[in-house]
This record gives sequence, structure tokens and C-alpha cells, in this order.
Amino acid sequence: MSKEKLNIVKVGGAIVEKEESLLPLLKSFSSLSGNKILVHGGGKIATAIAAQLGVETQMINGRRVTSAEMLKVVTMVYGGLVNKNLVARLQSMGVNAIGLSGADMNIIRSDKRPVEPIDFGFVGDVKEVNAKALSDIIGSGAVPVLAPLTHDGKGTMLNTNGDTIAATVAKALSSEYDVTLSYCSSTPGVMKDLDDPDSLIKTITSSDFRNLVADGTISEGMIPKLENAFEAIGSGVSRVVITSASDIDGGTTIMADPE
Amino acid sequence: MSKEKLNIVKVGGAIVEKEESLLPLLKSFSSLSGNKILVHGGGKIATAIAAQLGVETQMINGRRVTSAEMLKVVTMVYGGLVNKNLVARLQSMGVNAIGLSGADMNIIRSDKRPVEPIDFGFVGDVKEVNAKALSDIIGSGAVPVLAPLTHDGKGTMLNTNGDTIAATVAKALSSEYDVTLSYCSSTPGVMKDLDDPDSLIKTITSSDFRNLVADGTISEGMIPKLENAFEAIGSGVSRVVITSASDIDGGTTIMADPE
Repeated sequence: MSKEKLNIVKVGGAIVEKEESLLPLLKSFSSLSGNKILVHGGGKIATAIAAQLGVETQMINGRRVTSAEMLKVVTMVYGGLVNKNLVARLQSMGVNAIGLSGADMNIIRSDKRPVEPIDFGFVGDVKEVNAKALSDIIGSGAVPVLAPLTHDGKGTMLNTNGDTIAATVAKALSSEYDVTLSYCSSTPGVMKDLDDPDSLIKTITSSDFRNLVADGTISEGMIPKLENAFEAIGSGVSRVVITSASDIDGGTTIMADPE
Repeated sequence: MSKEKLNIVKVGGAIVEKEESLLPLLKSFSSLSGNKILVHGGGKIATAIAAQLGVETQMINGRRVTSAEMLKVVTMVYGGLVNKNLVARLQSMGVNAIGLSGADMNIIRSDKRPVEPIDFGFVGDVKEVNAKALSDIIGSGAVPVLAPLTHDGKGTMLNTNGDTIAATVAKALSSEYDVTLSYCSSTPGVMKDLDDPDSLIKTITSSDFRNLVADGTISEGMIPKLENAFEAIGSGVSRVVITSASDIDGGTTIMADPE
């Protein structure tokens, strides 16, 4: 019996915070038929609220250092403000959304990241995805909306990268579903030249990726995103796409290397 | 066939915000066997965070006026900070908690309260409880943890009184379950004299209630709480108790008037 299809869409904080980018994303997402999951970020909003609360944002290698005070901020912003507003919006568009953090039904349990070599504070590295709980929810016709938060199983929430959550959940569900994982941001996909929309790379293999990193074409935040994408493709996910929020079906398709 | 039992426990923000009162509540709640739901408040924490963000808290008749800015605060605090921390704590105690607002799976839909006679802003009056969705979640063995937030079905979250949510959910589930509704706060129950712990009223009927309000024994916040309680008893809920967070089985039992 062939597997049912499942679309997992990751959308970053920059898309979520602005109505003019959020609305097209919500429209494309709500028009996807069948099983689906939305994974969201919210870093830009967390940084803004943290500043208002007098909590300093410290980033190392593009990743947020999460002090006890910052953990409160991200728990509020990701788990509350962003998640519940996305759920309410999707419900109004006929999508039976249910907002979840990793703590809810123990869906994603993490280990607090070791303090060496860099102490990122209350940041979680995913340990276990409860695929059964997620597939039961999907099977009931609901649409999980996942906040980038997990828990350690000992009572503490942990800040967890949304791209990683999307990839880990995609891998965990790939034995049951035929999974397409789409990373949606404000750029059309992986670009040869960020200033030239015509320079979109339509397909990319891991050897292409290594070459494009080596010559400097691909840099910064796109590197961990593509690393997550290639790991997902290598672990049972059927299709990974990096695309813009308004065009879930377009963008750059990640390809396994030819055998 | 007799109905299965369901315990619905409402706990206020004053209990939730302090570890010394939260821990006993979590222990009593986690030791309750069978089907259960936790409904929480969080007003004191919302007021504190709002002040830090420069958002003024305005109360009328003990109820929060919810401006657009205050709606963001309560969505963050109730839906994120308080809800997710309760869920993580309960998970660590072996309770398969799932945190939900009224928007999640469209569990509780509200109408924005009319602006006359008093404009409370983004406050919801409960319109419909999705008893099917809640009983499916309970039936799967999960334990809903409900934030005092609902949605209007048109994309907007609404601040909604937690006592009312507890009573409304209790009524909606009473056709399927034998429901006990417990309101837990820092006082042992309904007291003749707040300064005398021995003055606990063990049972109260609605005619007792009217007399005790008339002579000034019962006042302020206890009045709407008891009104909710009597309405629940009159609408199919088997048992309503007003008690302390550390003693879910004690307190004051609300009784229907003798026929």
C-alpha cells in the first residue's frame, strides 16, 4: 500500500511578523490538500519583545543564546503570541489547526545542549519525536502548528531551532508518510546571486552544495538550512524544497546525489 | 451504562505564579486518577509583564479591559509562558498534558463582548464548546491544559475568564461524563470569616448563597465564582467544589437546592 502524502511547511519569523508576507503564506498553506503540518519561527518578534522587556539578545553563529530570561520570552512569543495567532488565522480559513510545542503530548523531547564548546543556555537538541502522537493528531484531521520549542522531560522548556524541528519531524514521520518538506522564507530559493531573481538554482545535489559553499556562492544562514535539508533527504524524506512563502510549489528542490 | 468520571480543575493565576503554591497543586492534580482537565489563569503574571512592556492594566469590576496591546500580552502569557510551563511540569510528573487555547481545534469559540454597557475590548463571551474534540483528546489518554483564551472564528484571539471557561467546558462535557468541577485558589473554600480557617462553609445551596451575599458574608470575587458554580450545578455538572490548591478533595461543596 502506498503511503499517504504529508506536507511539512516551515516558515520563518520574518514572514510571520508582517501581514503582507503572512497572508500569502497562510493562503498557500491553507490551499494545500491532505495531511499537513506548519512549523514556525518567530526570532525577530522575540528579539523585539526581549528589547522592550530589557532582555538583551545575544547571537553566536546566527543562533540565539537563551538565558533564563530569554527562555521566558521565547516561550511567550513562540508558544503564545505567534503560535496562537497562526492557529486563529488558520481556523478562520477553514484549517483545523492545533498549536503545539514539543512539551504538548511529549511530541518532541530534547536534551539541553552541552555548555562546551559554546554555552547557548536553554537550547534543546532534539532527542526523540513522538511520531505516534503526531500521526494520531494528523489522522484525526487536525493540522499541527509547531512552535520552535521543546522540553527536556524534566519540567523545563527548551528553545529549539525551527528548521531542525521541521527536518526532525519530517524524518520521524517518513516511515509512515510520503513527506514533502518545504522551507519557506522571503527569498525564492537558493540563489546564485541574491540580487538577481533569475539566478534561482532549481535543483541542487550535495556535491553541488559543497562546491557552491567552497566558492562562496552559498553562505551564512543558507548553509545550516541546506545541511538540514540534505540530512532529511538522506533519511527517508521524499522531497525537500527551499522556496518563498508565497510559492510553496516553486523554489529549489534538494536532490539526493546520483548513485 | 454509567458515565465515566471527569475531573475539571480550575487554578488561578496567584497559585500558578509561585512555586510554593504551584508544586502542591501539580502534585494533587497529577495524583487524580482517570480523565481530567486543568484550566488555568495567569492574570497576575500578565499584569506584571504588561507593566514591564509599558502596557497599562485597567480593571473594571475585577475584570481586565483588553486593549489590542493587552491582547498580545495575555496571548503571550496565558497561551505561552503559563500554559507551556504547566504542560512541561505535568509531563515531568507523568501526566500526558496537552496545552490548548480555545482556537486550537476550534475548542472554544466566542463572540467579542458588546461594547455596551462597558467596553472591555478584546474579551470573549463563550459561544460554543467543541465537546467532541475535547472528548476525543481525553479519550486518547491526554490531559488538556486550557488557557483562558478563546477565538472568534474570524482570526482573532479573545481574552476569556478562566472560571467561565471551566464552568462552560464542564457543562458541555456533562452529557458524556460524570463531571466534578473544582475551583482551586489560595483560600480553603467559601469562608464565613476570611481570617478564620475554621469558618469554612462545607456545603452551600443557592438560597444559602443569596442570604450570605445579602448579609455581606460573601463578597467581591467570590460572587461571580459562585454564580458560575451554581449555573454549572443547574446544567448537568455532578459536583462543584471551591477549595484550596493543595486540597482538591476538601473545601466547600456547591449543592443544588432541595426540591
